[in-house]
Amino acid sequence: MRIVPRGGLHDVPGFRSQAVAAGIKKKRRDVAVIHSTIPDTACAATFTTNRVHAAPVVVSKRVAARGKARAIVVNSGCANACTGGQGLLDAERMAETTARALGVAPADVLVASTGVIGRFLPMDIVEAGIRDAVGTLDAGEPGCVAQSIMTTDTVPKEVLVEFSVNGKAVRVAGVAKGAGMIHPSMATMLCFLLTDAAVPSADLQAALSRVVDRTFNMISVDGDTSTNDTVAVLANGASGVAAPAGSPAFGAFENALETACRHLALEIVKDGEGATTLIEVRVTGARTEADARLAARSVTKSSLVKTAVFGRDPNWGRVIAAIGYSGAAFDPAKVELSIGSPVGRARVLKDGVPCETLSPEELRKLIDQPHVILHAHLGDGSASATAWGCDLTYEYVKVNADYTT
Amino acid sequence: MRIVPRGGLHDVPGFRSQAVAAGIKKKRRDVAVIHSTIPDTACAATFTTNRVHAAPVVVSKRVAARGKARAIVVNSGCANACTGGQGLLDAERMAETTARALGVAPADVLVASTGVIGRFLPMDIVEAGIRDAVGTLDAGEPGCVAQSIMTTDTVPKEVLVEFSVNGKAVRVAGVAKGAGMIHPSMATMLCFLLTDAAVPSADLQAALSRVVDRTFNMISVDGDTSTNDTVAVLANGASGVAAPAGSPAFGAFENALETACRHLALEIVKDGEGATTLIEVRVTGARTEADARLAARSVTKSSLVKTAVFGRDPNWGRVIAAIGYSGAAFDPAKVELSIGSPVGRARVLKDGVPCETLSPEELRKLIDQPHVILHAHLGDGSASATAWGCDLTYEYVKVNADYTT
Repeated sequence: MRIVPRGGLHDVPGFRSQAVAAGIKKKRRDVAVIHSTIPDTACAATFTTNRVHAAPVVVSKRVAARGKARAIVVNSGCANACTGGQGLLDAERMAETTARALGVAPADVLVASTGVIGRFLPMDIVEAGIRDAVGTLDAGEPGCVAQSIMTTDTVPKEVLVEFSVNGKAVRVAGVAKGAGMIHPSMATMLCFLLTDAAVPSADLQAALSRVVDRTFNMISVDGDTSTNDTVAVLANGASGVAAPAGSPAFGAFENALETACRHLALEIVKDGEGATTLIEVRVTGARTEADARLAARSVTKSSLVKTAVFGRDPNWGRVIAAIGYSGAAFDPAKVELSIGSPVGRARVLKDGVPCETLSPEELRKLIDQPHVILHAHLGDGSASATAWGCDLTYEYVKVNADYTT
Repeated sequence: MRIVPRGGLHDVPGFRSQAVAAGIKKKRRDVAVIHSTIPDTACAATFTTNRVHAAPVVVSKRVAARGKARAIVVNSGCANACTGGQGLLDAERMAETTARALGVAPADVLVASTGVIGRFLPMDIVEAGIRDAVGTLDAGEPGCVAQSIMTTDTVPKEVLVEFSVNGKAVRVAGVAKGAGMIHPSMATMLCFLLTDAAVPSADLQAALSRVVDRTFNMISVDGDTSTNDTVAVLANGASGVAAPAGSPAFGAFENALETACRHLALEIVKDGEGATTLIEVRVTGARTEADARLAARSVTKSSLVKTAVFGRDPNWGRVIAAIGYSGAAFDPAKVELSIGSPVGRARVLKDGVPCETLSPEELRKLIDQPHVILHAHLGDGSASATAWGCDLTYEYVKVNADYTT
């Protein structure tokens, strides 16, 4: 299995994609269509847990529940969230317009939107954009979909993972967008994955749910869960490799899917609004995986930890405090904590008591890296989890204090 | 009932207090002692819910469980948290030293600390400071205790509430400290309240728990729960007014206690690290009070809401999103939202759909005030809650990115 440099959606056989500048945003691609040319394409998806669901999430949930899809249509520049009945009609219209242009059923089209909450979609522009994108699908440039879903992202996020089963190549490709919008608003996370493995939709959903729990659900930029989060995967079987659950091919597929998702998830965090530093939090020795996840995610969400990392302040008491209020079960007297980076690490706490192996100045140097690692061993069991976040900087405040209009 | 301007701890009969510069911090008061001259003094307290408890919290919990206390000893500059068995011995020694100097039992002394986590107390300095403070108790200046517990607080926080029962004056006074430290670290919240009402300790605890839930437990500066949070109240009965639960005097006392706590809680938020704006979030029409509290607190914790308020961006979609992921039960289609300030308010969402009564520019002017009010009516019941927070600013990042050492 390998990540293919500069690979992406266009490298997966049996899928076409195109993105156009419809005019929702100024002079930037803002409407994209992904099409599976193979009728029997499985689909699985995970969606935001926010009680407020954007209209496209409502529509896509129905599609994903059936386990089959032929296309994805997505716009940026407007989230179509908090838009009531009209918003729902608009999202359904996006699916219908896409379906009619492609000659597929509306019930086979996933819909996604990202942008400011509380505004209606300019449907004339959106529909013209969809028809334009479908009409030029075969001319779609590599990378165009990843570009079209960017908002305040500073780089497009796309990945291609290849593996082989009995000599046959299989591909998993994906695009994602992270935190920020053209009018800075909700951090809306979108990710679309394509594979030419043949995976039954129930198995595809099971693999996706497991993988998302270990990747996208373990990142945090600002702790705010969006109304529009969507991760969807289409599997069209074009590789000729069948990968039902239980087969060796399925294990290889799930590994590749996790590699693709982890890659995109880390791209999102590294490109988090205003971020300068990737913060990796490893929790080991937890009683249960749920405890490990709670503890790790709590640290990545702490404003005090995030600002300390930005300032290269080895103020590890903030890490322990964040684990302490996380809700995770553990015994403070057994905790061991080390801080550092890929360059090296130092233990700062053992059995709940400080151990000053390095001076604060030496610790500061150890974490003066673009990738900081905080490792807590709870000494209470054998479960573990890793979460990723980013630092909280002046630039974050700037990006998010700017006026929407 | 009234708040007495410039009043404080020194105005409550039967209590003495003093604070000295022991030397934990440079040339600032850092050790304080509060003494009740009346042997039968009731005590109640609430403590941090962080699983990591600082040593003084462990000691004070034992005292509070007995419902009686004669003194409070507190230091700033070192939190005595994550300090293991030695830290516990040090906290017990603070109580013993205070008790011996005052001629009371060690089990009658509450202990509190605030400062950097993971450092040991310089006990020689602390003990000398305690003896010095006790030796000069009668010379204690008004305001000295509030000053001594300040860290990055920019103003001392003290309040005196007076009410009368059958012509007899009763007083409730309190001091508190908020977010920040001389070496910026955990936001450690401390509050000490004194009253000359005679309140049985069980009733005192019941009143304090209710009041803290509506006041201190509804504020947020940065979402990080400290290891040292402590709110303690001593009631010495010096007013001659008995206020057991069920009596009219008890109702008046609980009102005064709530007034004092709300005053100090809002002082803490207004003086939050880097804050320029008080954010008040009112949630009404909730199914249960628990739902209302979850929803309101979620909004005050959202980095996106906090930065939007700092930038005077009427980006209310972030408010709805924060209520949506709060865990509160509600129907998004019934929500009504208004934003504004004491100057005026405008409805922006009704029945889950935007209603643009004002232009974004007019909305911006409405929230361009030092006190912003966000009001969500969930339309699902009759429960309500109010939470208070502050904006997230460049200065917050600056204060917290600074190096501890």
